[in-house]
Amino acid sequence: MRTFNIFLAVLLFAWFAAGFVPIAAAQQDPTGTREVPSRVIPVPDTVSPQMQAVIARPFDPSFNLVPQTTAEWKARAEKVAAATVARLPKLREALGVSVQPATMAGVKIFIVAPKSIAPQNRDRVLMHLHGGVRVFGFGESGTREAILMAGFSGFKVISVDYRMPPDFPFPAALDDAVAVYRAILQTTGAKNVGIFGTSAGGSLTITTLMRAKIEGLPMPGAIAPGTPTVDLTKTGDTLFTNAMVDNFLGTQDGFIRSTALLYANGRDLKDPLLSPIYGDVQGFPPTIVTSGTRDLYLSNSVRMHRKLRAAGVEAVLQIWEGQSHAQYMSDITAPEVKEYHNEIARFFDLHLGR
Amino acid sequence: MRTFNIFLAVLLFAWFAAGFVPIAAAQQDPTGTREVPSRVIPVPDTVSPQMQAVIARPFDPSFNLVPQTTAEWKARAEKVAAATVARLPKLREALGVSVQPATMAGVKIFIVAPKSIAPQNRDRVLMHLHGGVRVFGFGESGTREAILMAGFSGFKVISVDYRMPPDFPFPAALDDAVAVYRAILQTTGAKNVGIFGTSAGGSLTITTLMRAKIEGLPMPGAIAPGTPTVDLTKTGDTLFTNAMVDNFLGTQDGFIRSTALLYANGRDLKDPLLSPIYGDVQGFPPTIVTSGTRDLYLSNSVRMHRKLRAAGVEAVLQIWEGQSHAQYMSDITAPEVKEYHNEIARFFDLHLGR
Repeated sequence: MRTFNIFLAVLLFAWFAAGFVPIAAAQQDPTGTREVPSRVIPVPDTVSPQMQAVIARPFDPSFNLVPQTTAEWKARAEKVAAATVARLPKLREALGVSVQPATMAGVKIFIVAPKSIAPQNRDRVLMHLHGGVRVFGFGESGTREAILMAGFSGFKVISVDYRMPPDFPFPAALDDAVAVYRAILQTTGAKNVGIFGTSAGGSLTITTLMRAKIEGLPMPGAIAPGTPTVDLTKTGDTLFTNAMVDNFLGTQDGFIRSTALLYANGRDLKDPLLSPIYGDVQGFPPTIVTSGTRDLYLSNSVRMHRKLRAAGVEAVLQIWEGQSHAQYMSDITAPEVKEYHNEIARFFDLHLGR
Repeated sequence: MRTFNIFLAVLLFAWFAAGFVPIAAAQQDPTGTREVPSRVIPVPDTVSPQMQAVIARPFDPSFNLVPQTTAEWKARAEKVAAATVARLPKLREALGVSVQPATMAGVKIFIVAPKSIAPQNRDRVLMHLHGGVRVFGFGESGTREAILMAGFSGFKVISVDYRMPPDFPFPAALDDAVAVYRAILQTTGAKNVGIFGTSAGGSLTITTLMRAKIEGLPMPGAIAPGTPTVDLTKTGDTLFTNAMVDNFLGTQDGFIRSTALLYANGRDLKDPLLSPIYGDVQGFPPTIVTSGTRDLYLSNSVRMHRKLRAAGVEAVLQIWEGQSHAQYMSDITAPEVKEYHNEIARFFDLHLGR
């Protein structure tokens, strides 16, 4: 018995040493699947101290809890929104930005304005589609990214408070985004409009253009989808290579997958209006795509950039050192956050009509 | 004794389960250092079948053996060169490219010419600085990348057979590169010259411009450093996050570090002419930087792109899905390889004088 226990211990030891798979299989899987050993990843010293603090944050395992009822979904969205909203007054003040609720084409919006609008931006407007895994960011809580953009870029921003699950799955968000875009075109030339958003909002930026094309609306002057969730299926190399490297999203399994299913509401996840990587981007305007080296969704950005380039679109890519998902809009005192917004502002300034 | 053994087994079990560090430390290291568990990375289905085959290759552990004597260094370089040279005739034929040895300013070069040079490229030339971890690629073996570029892009290429360690450490390679650039300027306007290279050749592309600036030479029209080794120190986030994810380089420790020390020959690795990320890129011409999501040196590309942008340089970045180091020039039948060269050709065509 004692010998058996030692034998078992050695077996277990070997099994864990090999990372839960037979050692031989690690290098010789005929499909090319490889086992990458566990590793220690220090916080890089190649980013600012503020960004180092963002990168140093541990992954929050509670992020991956999946709500089981409509009430639980709503409670979680409320909790996230409350935490965000509490910090907004200070943010608006720091960046000198005002926020006014309004409606446009029956859709709730926020008009987010910098203290002063640069002369060349008088006849320009940015439309903002907030992120939040398709379920977070309702009401004022969705304005955070718009406040950063208005404050850093000097553009006037219309932030769309689009409808979301659990009450309003696909295509409510898309309907609202297109309705607001159509309404903006009543007073502003399409070429003078830029559209931007992060994560789910980046994907919605792209699907809004796809729907606009279908409906015969003109393309905007430029778009800036940040780390867009262009594929709701578990596809893309960094979903595997950056799993748990990303300290914000962790993995696509669990919570994130549940939000995709909730949003899709039974529709095929490869529908181009859910996963625009499977759609048609011919005729898209100049596009700037952003991600980070630790981003779970780096592949989404890289694949969309390549798809746009292959379609002849003037598309550029910026990738930020060490950043996980959407951390280019984290701490407003980090020089990288200012630099990100300067790049986006420069891109819009270069490509929007005046 | 039996109880002790079981206790030991459980301890070992827990230790391995936690990935060799105390469980508590994994999430709570005050420096933000995190332990990422081992993971299985399948070959992505988001790339072509040819690129899937490249990505499926196992890492070759013999890559990391460090030569111990000058003779061993030379034997290894000879072996790598012989394997490459054996495949060149077929490659030249497939791409319709001719290669002629010559000398320029006393430096050995190869004139690499496509079957026909497009009319707009008659007065343009690309200078090529091959890669090979600063020790591989002597003689004809260094022309492989130049053959691909000439064949796919329709540009005439001058490939520099620069001197290398162990016989010729820094600054021999740089001296040779700058000497050839200076000689090219005798017959071709600087704006009509593009410079490109991969890995060590990408870094040499950048340091050649730094030295050209110091010597008062004009800048070329554009450059294309591919996954440039801009930092010879162990700095950059993907050196950790992509360690052993990259199936070509593996890690920077061992062999790669030994080539850096051999090349530097006692000089500080942070010398900007060894590690140009620490240098001055003001006044650089339009630059296109390339890397892949699995590239150990993705951070080198990302950091250099940001440094160039911060200096006001017209710099663009392209990142390829699932690719490890330099795999954009792997299998010439892979559509990604053709697409990469089309992008570089388009960039040079856009920015070079005529």
